[in-house]
Amino acid sequence: MRILILGGDGYLGWPTAMHFAMRGHEVTVFDNYLRRRITLQTDSEPLLPLPSLPERARRFELETGKHINVVIGDCCDHEYLLKAVQEASPEAIVHYAEQPSAPYSMANRNSARLTLENNLGATFNLIWAVLEAAPDCHIIKLGTMGEYGTPNIDIEEGWIDINHKGRSQKFLYPRQAGSLYHTTKVLDTDLLWFYVRIYGLQVTDLMQGPVYGQSTPEMDIHPDLLTAFNYDDIFGTVVNRFVTQAIAGVPLTVYGKGGQTRGYLNIMDTIQCIELAAASPPGRGQLRVLNQFTERFSVNQLAERVKLVGDRMGLSVQIQSVENPRKEAEEHYYNPVHSGLLDLGLKPHFLTDDVMAAMLERIHQHRDAIDIRKILPRVRWSS
Amino acid sequence: MRILILGGDGYLGWPTAMHFAMRGHEVTVFDNYLRRRITLQTDSEPLLPLPSLPERARRFELETGKHINVVIGDCCDHEYLLKAVQEASPEAIVHYAEQPSAPYSMANRNSARLTLENNLGATFNLIWAVLEAAPDCHIIKLGTMGEYGTPNIDIEEGWIDINHKGRSQKFLYPRQAGSLYHTTKVLDTDLLWFYVRIYGLQVTDLMQGPVYGQSTPEMDIHPDLLTAFNYDDIFGTVVNRFVTQAIAGVPLTVYGKGGQTRGYLNIMDTIQCIELAAASPPGRGQLRVLNQFTERFSVNQLAERVKLVGDRMGLSVQIQSVENPRKEAEEHYYNPVHSGLLDLGLKPHFLTDDVMAAMLERIHQHRDAIDIRKILPRVRWSS
Repeated sequence: MRILILGGDGYLGWPTAMHFAMRGHEVTVFDNYLRRRITLQTDSEPLLPLPSLPERARRFELETGKHINVVIGDCCDHEYLLKAVQEASPEAIVHYAEQPSAPYSMANRNSARLTLENNLGATFNLIWAVLEAAPDCHIIKLGTMGEYGTPNIDIEEGWIDINHKGRSQKFLYPRQAGSLYHTTKVLDTDLLWFYVRIYGLQVTDLMQGPVYGQSTPEMDIHPDLLTAFNYDDIFGTVVNRFVTQAIAGVPLTVYGKGGQTRGYLNIMDTIQCIELAAASPPGRGQLRVLNQFTERFSVNQLAERVKLVGDRMGLSVQIQSVENPRKEAEEHYYNPVHSGLLDLGLKPHFLTDDVMAAMLERIHQHRDAIDIRKILPRVRWSS
Repeated sequence: MRILILGGDGYLGWPTAMHFAMRGHEVTVFDNYLRRRITLQTDSEPLLPLPSLPERARRFELETGKHINVVIGDCCDHEYLLKAVQEASPEAIVHYAEQPSAPYSMANRNSARLTLENNLGATFNLIWAVLEAAPDCHIIKLGTMGEYGTPNIDIEEGWIDINHKGRSQKFLYPRQAGSLYHTTKVLDTDLLWFYVRIYGLQVTDLMQGPVYGQSTPEMDIHPDLLTAFNYDDIFGTVVNRFVTQAIAGVPLTVYGKGGQTRGYLNIMDTIQCIELAAASPPGRGQLRVLNQFTERFSVNQLAERVKLVGDRMGLSVQIQSVENPRKEAEEHYYNPVHSGLLDLGLKPHFLTDDVMAAMLERIHQHRDAIDIRKILPRVRWSS
């Protein structure tokens, strides 16, 4: 399959690229290094230095003999993206090319503006590049479970039948997100769904929960092939943060009451889900929405799990509630359906004690690189 | 009241400004002439030449002694908009500053991009200018009934309680619009609702149906005070178009089956609704949504009404179905609630035969100015 990965330098984009290339697919990665620029500007650089995308692709080819085509460019530049789509002639495009940090999107007007313009602009240009150069191409868009927020009813997979005053209508499931970043993903979905209806695009929207981990068969081949691992308050997802805090001897920072519950998944399952989605496109004129996570935890449960496994390894892990920098429900109902990807064949990698221990051990090898100034919340959801 | 009207040069903005100024309010209009530029570029200029905004404000002051402050500027320029908000120090801002043509938004990639960037950019900058310079200000945002589309269930006023699997949650009513323009208004609402929740803005979203007419007490004072009257396929709303076609002897162009039903209102009622909303702000942290129209018609009913009144006046009005350039349901259920503005005190001006006759007579005075090349659909909803 010819596959184009937008945001191919990112935490998920790079391991996805290697996975597909390893299996003989023709892979092009496209990235403008936005995440690198923002992590540098916000003092949120990842645990280990990251070779450039061409350097990583060269290392990957050296180790495996598999080629990854690299294009450094900005999805917000329509002409450039169009050219990349024309040249890659993809059967599937994986769209990771978004500013992905909720705290960054809430930091100030300029960071909010960048998030809105980048995420909507990239999605808009992708839509038009596909219409113009690859109309049969399958767009695999990374959404987020955060688009749904925490409603008091079950979260369905993207769609809901509403029965109202004796009549019925199917709608996109109403979304109400907790950050501007998550809101831009709601807008993306609205935009894609509009162009699906009108022009018959085919789109899979993967509503992903927070991802953890940094190990895949391809990343484990050579240290230069590791993905960006962020443990800071701005780009670090909660499991990765807690594991790093446990190693650094910093109390695990639970925001508020810690009852915030989300659906989580291992980075290996993100890749598996992309592969499953790519293998069975939904067909022209379809917006397929799949909720992408494998198990649910509250923040308190995650902290307790990290403490349990960490303490067994001889770390003395502390847990500390800090004032919640976000505006979010700290205790809430949460029951999202997530059967679509299982039906497609997803075999989950759960967050077992062994997986947790392996994560802790890997971070332990790099404990000297941890900068504990990056851990406490630096962005508050107040104006 | 100090009131700032964004898009104050437009079909609705200008008469709204005069109405408030006439009643002693301190009015500032802000506009970048975007609509004028696009009507010129698309050969869709209004029936009569339009004096500039400062010229109209001078004429208005000459005739009435009432002052309107004019600022020519772009809402997409944050610094400029912020300065205008700081200087006007408004208690209410009426946000009309959007590219308002559905066909224009569907013409090509560049027109789509302009619509998305202008409408989202203006709304984003407005949100931040209010947060920074006038946080207690009441934002009166013009939405459109078109955001809802034509669902098979009753359309509520902005919100719906969804009962699902034995539990219940209130949501923004799901929106599914029929053009990119209408979709940008859906995105606007999502964005405003997010910042209402997080930062406690106070917003009224007026979900307006198609407006008709060109007569208000202030516009009737002097010909230079008339608002832009578009009768073309790109900017002309359907009643204004049909009335003009009847006068020009061009068959009324019903798109497809003509069963498309919408809620309509007289331009005088638009202004009345704005005034009612401004007089009773919803309070900080509230997004109030009101469905703004006074009566429902199908396109066929409108065409028949124009024909009935036109024929009585001696015009021989023909009706002709043309291939529908849009993708929309031509026969559908449509039952939107619209009690909120009536509860606030709206006294509707209905589309009586007398009102229709007065519109026909006024266009008749300017029949030589009609350019019939502008009437047939020039933009199709196909890629």
